[in-house]
Amino acid sequence: MAIAAAIAGALLLFLLWPSAASAAGVDEETAFVLNTLSFLIFGALVMWMAAGFTMLEAGSVRTKNASTICMKNLGIYSIAGLAYFVIGYNLMYVDVGDLIGSVTFFYGPSADEIALIDGQDAASRVIATPYSSMSDWFFQMVFVATTASIVSGALAERARMWSFFVFTLVLTAVIYPIVGAWTWGGGWLDEMGFQDFAGSTIVHGTGGWAALAGAIIVGPRRGKFAPDGSVRPTPPSSVVIVTLGVFILWFGWFGFNGGSQLALGSALDVVAMSIVLVNTNLAAAAGVLAALVASRPIFGRMSLLAALNGGIAGLVSITAGPDITEPLWAIMIGAVGGVICTGGIWLLERLRIDDVVGAVPAHLFAGIWGTLAVSIAAGGDLITQLVGVVAIGAFVFAVSLALWRLIDMTVGAHVTPEVERIGQDVGELGLEAYPEFLLMPEPEWDSDADADADADADADADADAD
Amino acid sequence: MAIAAAIAGALLLFLLWPSAASAAGVDEETAFVLNTLSFLIFGALVMWMAAGFTMLEAGSVRTKNASTICMKNLGIYSIAGLAYFVIGYNLMYVDVGDLIGSVTFFYGPSADEIALIDGQDAASRVIATPYSSMSDWFFQMVFVATTASIVSGALAERARMWSFFVFTLVLTAVIYPIVGAWTWGGGWLDEMGFQDFAGSTIVHGTGGWAALAGAIIVGPRRGKFAPDGSVRPTPPSSVVIVTLGVFILWFGWFGFNGGSQLALGSALDVVAMSIVLVNTNLAAAAGVLAALVASRPIFGRMSLLAALNGGIAGLVSITAGPDITEPLWAIMIGAVGGVICTGGIWLLERLRIDDVVGAVPAHLFAGIWGTLAVSIAAGGDLITQLVGVVAIGAFVFAVSLALWRLIDMTVGAHVTPEVERIGQDVGELGLEAYPEFLLMPEPEWDSDADADADADADADADADAD
Amino acid sequence: MAIAAAIAGALLLFLLWPSAASAAGVDEETAFVLNTLSFLIFGALVMWMAAGFTMLEAGSVRTKNASTICMKNLGIYSIAGLAYFVIGYNLMYVDVGDLIGSVTFFYGPSADEIALIDGQDAASRVIATPYSSMSDWFFQMVFVATTASIVSGALAERARMWSFFVFTLVLTAVIYPIVGAWTWGGGWLDEMGFQDFAGSTIVHGTGGWAALAGAIIVGPRRGKFAPDGSVRPTPPSSVVIVTLGVFILWFGWFGFNGGSQLALGSALDVVAMSIVLVNTNLAAAAGVLAALVASRPIFGRMSLLAALNGGIAGLVSITAGPDITEPLWAIMIGAVGGVICTGGIWLLERLRIDDVVGAVPAHLFAGIWGTLAVSIAAGGDLITQLVGVVAIGAFVFAVSLALWRLIDMTVGAHVTPEVERIGQDVGELGLEAYPEFLLMPEPEWDSDADADADADADADADADAD
Repeated sequence: MAIAAAIAGALLLFLLWPSAASAAGVDEETAFVLNTLSFLIFGALVMWMAAGFTMLEAGSVRTKNASTICMKNLGIYSIAGLAYFVIGYNLMYVDVGDLIGSVTFFYGPSADEIALIDGQDAASRVIATPYSSMSDWFFQMVFVATTASIVSGALAERARMWSFFVFTLVLTAVIYPIVGAWTWGGGWLDEMGFQDFAGSTIVHGTGGWAALAGAIIVGPRRGKFAPDGSVRPTPPSSVVIVTLGVFILWFGWFGFNGGSQLALGSALDVVAMSIVLVNTNLAAAAGVLAALVASRPIFGRMSLLAALNGGIAGLVSITAGPDITEPLWAIMIGAVGGVICTGGIWLLERLRIDDVVGAVPAHLFAGIWGTLAVSIAAGGDLITQLVGVVAIGAFVFAVSLALWRLIDMTVGAHVTPEVERIGQDVGELGLEAYPEFLLMPEPEWDSDADADADADADADADADAD
Repeated sequence: MAIAAAIAGALLLFLLWPSAASAAGVDEETAFVLNTLSFLIFGALVMWMAAGFTMLEAGSVRTKNASTICMKNLGIYSIAGLAYFVIGYNLMYVDVGDLIGSVTFFYGPSADEIALIDGQDAASRVIATPYSSMSDWFFQMVFVATTASIVSGALAERARMWSFFVFTLVLTAVIYPIVGAWTWGGGWLDEMGFQDFAGSTIVHGTGGWAALAGAIIVGPRRGKFAPDGSVRPTPPSSVVIVTLGVFILWFGWFGFNGGSQLALGSALDVVAMSIVLVNTNLAAAAGVLAALVASRPIFGRMSLLAALNGGIAGLVSITAGPDITEPLWAIMIGAVGGVICTGGIWLLERLRIDDVVGAVPAHLFAGIWGTLAVSIAAGGDLITQLVGVVAIGAFVFAVSLALWRLIDMTVGAHVTPEVERIGQDVGELGLEAYPEFLLMPEPEWDSDADADADADADADADADAD
Repeated sequence: MAIAAAIAGALLLFLLWPSAASAAGVDEETAFVLNTLSFLIFGALVMWMAAGFTMLEAGSVRTKNASTICMKNLGIYSIAGLAYFVIGYNLMYVDVGDLIGSVTFFYGPSADEIALIDGQDAASRVIATPYSSMSDWFFQMVFVATTASIVSGALAERARMWSFFVFTLVLTAVIYPIVGAWTWGGGWLDEMGFQDFAGSTIVHGTGGWAALAGAIIVGPRRGKFAPDGSVRPTPPSSVVIVTLGVFILWFGWFGFNGGSQLALGSALDVVAMSIVLVNTNLAAAAGVLAALVASRPIFGRMSLLAALNGGIAGLVSITAGPDITEPLWAIMIGAVGGVICTGGIWLLERLRIDDVVGAVPAHLFAGIWGTLAVSIAAGGDLITQLVGVVAIGAFVFAVSLALWRLIDMTVGAHVTPEVERIGQDVGELGLEAYPEFLLMPEPEWDSDADADADADADADADADAD
């Protein structure tokens, strides 16, 4: 009897053992808490990148346009946050199957989770998902804002404020969500095996293509490219503020890439996250130093601005695969990204495309490199990566080009020559950035005859200054 | 026999099942770690808001007062941190029952926890509480500092530095702790059911009422309101720095509201925290855009400064109930907050109350709205909310008014005309903020005859310039 | 039968009970996740301190050298990150036994962890260590960068950029790792019982001694010390940016000290971390106020710059023992640190040692005080602490002195008089920090005859301006 009971007990012990063993792992609810916490903390860090873009851009523009670029960046983050709630998220994750057939408005799961909290429902219902869906929305939302922030820098100093906001609205409500749906929404690129961990192409490529399209349609700042082919320098308003912006972005990128592991509830997840942060930092450091060295032959002198952009390019480059890249490869990827960015700045100037902060080289060129480098460094399929890069690029560039053209033909994309001459701060916004400081007089060329090269921009002169 | 044993085993399995199920929840010590971690990380984020207030204010004042406002903000955070340790916390949480009968000095539980660590005591003793009491102190302390930071902005450019520090000391050691005790210390407002999640009224209302009382007693900057009734503009020293400040505050607010869930040790807690962060962000974004639009009819042009303040007002508005508000309501609450703030700036100018950064509209007016909106949006009791708002307002305003009056009659609250003319940086602190930069000459009115309106301020001319 | 089965069941219940009880603690994998998360989040906060040093220094130097100090700080963080990966970490933790016998290159454990993730290996293998070794590398790396950041501020405005980078490379690849190995690598100081929780001496002392050696060899800025013995003031370019820098450092220090608990996976760890954050904040607040008060007798007026430095000194002072210090002692330690720093600034000027930002008083003098104070406040052994301070000081100072001398004799340490006169931004880097702003003319003495006191610096005039 006792023996039988003992056997039963041993059997029971055996039966229970696996459950005891699994109890020595992270239990389900703890994993839920940690996964969700990861989205919240790292998402907050990504939100902070909005300040980084703002500082980078406000320091890069001339003082006469610094308030306007602050307004644009504040507007971006606000518009993106609402647009992604009202339509973007559903388009990206919920409606992807039916394409534009039936778009659901407003982020849906929020009501469920609110009800859950109101009812103080059993935890069991909560942990049916691996994390709070609200936290996921938060994390995805800050990515949308990042995409739009890339555009503002490239088009600074001449894109009309309200025109830019219209573009931002469409980009964050529709364009980015469609691109995101293809991979992160489980769409056709995901099925193909396209690898883009935190979005070298999905986020930075999308922002970069939209910026390039905008730069082409909006046109360069008047006088930037002299009739004799030379490029006129436009002094940054504050190199210190630019540097602050880059440090903010670097800091925020730990959230951008770290949080993209999408989980924190197991040892393997947190090890992956550690690798991600180490690779992210190594690539950025390598990007800084490589761009600094490359700037000597390319620009004739070591350039701090190239090094700052090189850091960003290093960060963008590693973003496609920080989880699966060996650290030495991360250094290599970042370094090449930094050099590509520096060369890209030179190239764009040759092509007479005016990108005030070097957003296209840092985000688009380095993003393409990083997306392809995943297959080189970590053994993915190069063709699949190429398909992703080309498909996203073609879609975003075409739609952005069309949208900017439409904006240009209606409300106008480029400010009037007069607004551009006196600066958007006084001409459009009515608020000088540094009203008490005495400034250098503008160089002559800013108001000279070559401005009539942008005839279409002049046409909407009367539409300006609202 | 075997059958009986099997039955016993099955019974045992059944008996153990609930415990296995509960073992699938967050265990007690893990919850303790997560709860405490929440206070530490989110508390650090709230500390960072001190930098946000500093930048917001330093960018908003004229260059001649920028160093002084930095000194004030550095002083606030330091004084608040010590005062809350020496007396504030005990007054708020420990002595609330006996009122001012027997105030205990120095934060008590610290000694216990130090002893615990020294003895490497059994974890069982630690987890008798849901979180480390030291971490709780840390989180509460950064809230005190926030309250005081609100005041400095409103009184910038003319409140005497040392007088301001005296007020800060009393505010953080006594006034705020008494208000806090009424709700968060388990006092009478808490018993009534007053709802103020993270302090739309307890923190922002308290700071706002103290600022309003100060603005009345200290009086406006000389020349701000012309004898003909017009309001003279005072240029901000750096719009870029103001924008940086607002982004810092927005970022820090995730800690302010997120950490106010006061727990992270269960799925329900972290879901609530997710809702809090989403609502916080939605309200801020709505506040920015609504204030931007509202500034057009109110000020005649779209105003970046109104939009920046609108973002803060949106954040303040949602702070009373971000956990129980539907996201669509959060958008509504934030938008109304932004409009109220913009209208409030206009109103204060009509009332000839000088609030340099718009602290009263953004924190007090939006805070009142947010506290009442909880009952509208989430079904609380409007009367209870009103009682809380009025009681706290009456207490803080009356005590602050008396204290500022006392300060004004003794050491003086307003700097001398001469110090105000040359600026506090040179006149009081002896350190220019931008000594190498060439600045615009001051407009004539700054030293003109209307200064004698503040006769009492002139009286302490000789007491100044220490 | 049934009774026997029940007994067996009860026995089983008893046997299982302890396992259920241990399940009420943090399980092994959850602890692994939390420990690692601590390194990642707090490490990211320490990285952010790089921005703090940059802002502190960029605001403290004159406008003509602000871009260069940004470049130096960007370079520091990048060089440190790579150097510590390629050689520093292994020297500090792996090769300490064989001294310089066989240095292993490249951080080793990274390959293991990458392989682990690639193979999606059983969690059991991961949790053989208490945390991800990659996360540990990340946390250690940001400490190296901090050490180097201290040096740049002291030598600002005249140390040649590339010479400084060479010194940074050796400091982060070799000097700091050797010092770190003595204690944190388990070396002889650790065996003696030397206590230095987060590095008052190991990090801040090392940086401070290296800065002092550099300040002696590089020599003061030309004209800083007049022939008549007076000290000429050099205006900070922006007091607002200096203040921002100090707030960033204060915020980042929560990561610096909090993360140095090196664990988060138990209630005792998180309680210790709470004590650490509270003490860190109290010491900083006390340092600010004590330095502010002390600046009155020392400099003849209350000084914001002294208060800002006092805050840093308070933070440095508490860094050696924030986990074992009673809060009242933390206040005392921070206050004394603030006073020492203020006195130290005065002392260095008397010694005609030029330290632009007060890095030596804030990091070295306060670091020595803090390291000794551990034994006073928390009962350690004063002699052991002294041995650690002296040994690390002698080693770092001697090696740094030799290295700076070597640099000075070869490529040159001090920029040419002409570069110093026009500023490093134009003279070395070719990028003005504020090109659009009109600035005060330089005072006469900057280019006067006393410059020939630094004859050796003049010698490398032709080597400059690369």
